[in-house]
Amino acid sequence: MAEYSIGLDLGGTNLRAGAIDKSGKLLEKVSGATPLAAGREPVLDDMVAVISQLRSRCGRDGLAGIGVGVPGFIRLKDGVIGNSNNLAFLENFPIRDELERRLGAQVILENDANSAALGEKWMGAGRKVDDLVLLTLGTGIGGGIISGGKVLHGYLGMAAELGHLTVVPNGNPCGCGNQGCLEKHASALAIVNMARLLGLGENLTAADVYALAKQGNEKAHTVFITMGQALGIGLAMLVNTFNFPLYLLSGGVLAAWDLFAPPMLAEMRRRSYTFRTTDTRVEQATLGNEAGLYGAAYLPWVGR
Amino acid sequence: MAEYSIGLDLGGTNLRAGAIDKSGKLLEKVSGATPLAAGREPVLDDMVAVISQLRSRCGRDGLAGIGVGVPGFIRLKDGVIGNSNNLAFLENFPIRDELERRLGAQVILENDANSAALGEKWMGAGRKVDDLVLLTLGTGIGGGIISGGKVLHGYLGMAAELGHLTVVPNGNPCGCGNQGCLEKHASALAIVNMARLLGLGENLTAADVYALAKQGNEKAHTVFITMGQALGIGLAMLVNTFNFPLYLLSGGVLAAWDLFAPPMLAEMRRRSYTFRTTDTRVEQATLGNEAGLYGAAYLPWVGR
Repeated sequence: MAEYSIGLDLGGTNLRAGAIDKSGKLLEKVSGATPLAAGREPVLDDMVAVISQLRSRCGRDGLAGIGVGVPGFIRLKDGVIGNSNNLAFLENFPIRDELERRLGAQVILENDANSAALGEKWMGAGRKVDDLVLLTLGTGIGGGIISGGKVLHGYLGMAAELGHLTVVPNGNPCGCGNQGCLEKHASALAIVNMARLLGLGENLTAADVYALAKQGNEKAHTVFITMGQALGIGLAMLVNTFNFPLYLLSGGVLAAWDLFAPPMLAEMRRRSYTFRTTDTRVEQATLGNEAGLYGAAYLPWVGR
Repeated sequence: MAEYSIGLDLGGTNLRAGAIDKSGKLLEKVSGATPLAAGREPVLDDMVAVISQLRSRCGRDGLAGIGVGVPGFIRLKDGVIGNSNNLAFLENFPIRDELERRLGAQVILENDANSAALGEKWMGAGRKVDDLVLLTLGTGIGGGIISGGKVLHGYLGMAAELGHLTVVPNGNPCGCGNQGCLEKHASALAIVNMARLLGLGENLTAADVYALAKQGNEKAHTVFITMGQALGIGLAMLVNTFNFPLYLLSGGVLAAWDLFAPPMLAEMRRRSYTFRTTDTRVEQATLGNEAGLYGAAYLPWVGR
């Protein structure tokens, strides 16, 4: 059996895992059976079961390592999730050590958005560059920074919390304690929230709001203009900070690209001399929901 | 003669150069005689004269290289300053090639704030870390990012334009085309401008405004609170982005630290979960006006 690696991506709503070889070929893929709302023990059991299953199918001999992506502010050195809006039951729990104990193998822990950024760098839209920033637009907004081909971690592993860039200093309050965070003005949840504020409906999804806008509803269209501008403010700052060649966006909200991208790019041109005068690219990520899985699997080879 | 390097720092108002050995000892120091307002040719002549003087005093044999820090958005690969608010006569001029031609030696070009950050990392307040961000608070605000012991450049050398982070989305207009840039709300010039808006005087310096505040003038005090808050918004974003252990501030405005630091730190605590929950440090740089000189001299050893 050729060398392979196991990657697991614990998202806000799903658990995905796969065995991938060094060329990026997905050998086996498994999804979790347990809803994440079930709590800590069932989810841990599921993670261990899924990894064990992949390991026995592909064989222990060729296993290069196991990478796991999880959401939240992670203290990587300790292997502990400090703060996680989506998986509160994992906060301050030594998840890495517990997984290692149950699996009898080393586990490399990573933030989920960092994993996704690494996946895009390895096998997705960032294959041809060594430096990129990824924003994952979901319920919240995650960030991942790849610098020199590796994840930029910061000294505690908490770098790239880009959903918490301040884009509206007196804007909506955020669970992180700040107000006006990018993720409170440009995520799928922000879209739904703005639609509600405009009286478009109480239980719409971001896709519903998009459909309304496409049907000619001006209020719904305004939502995407506002969201695109907020995203543009954040991206302009990232361009001015990093001068990387590539900025990627991922998440279901990308389906509304035709509505939010024009105001986003206009805002970036206005707010970033660098963006306006260079060939800096803003593009859609290409691995979709599997970016985190690829990135997690790549961890044993690239090193964290 | 032991190995040494020549560093030159072309600031917004001064030209400083020095010969420094590998242990960081300043062997010789020279300041330019020409006001930078004199224009391109006199300034270039002065740069070449100063470097030549140091080279003949210390000898060609031990010379490891020549590093030059200049202000502006620099396309490092071409060795050209694309946009410089302070030295417009050097815009789109191939300064590196011209210096190399006149000196008959290789020159390593760098942004002035990047040089200052590198200097602080080598011999100043950042000696004990490999990762830091420096903000230089002067007429404008420059930024330098040291990641893994080296300057973070971006793909064109235009990274770390941190004075152009948007901290007030509908704030003061900036020469870069944006509005609400950090440097339009937290630089020495911003302090003077706010004092003028408050009717404190037409021709005050930042030091005058500080003196007024210390004498109990509430309007003058408000200027430093406002400036500190703007700085805090920017720094909180940098902490959330990099999770580096150290953020340094430099420039004459540091003399007002006792007035602007408390609101700055309060804003950072509020706007950054990472800052609030870790031992991340915000400190004053220690090399003062010589940071850029040290950093430029270090370039031949560290590589750009």
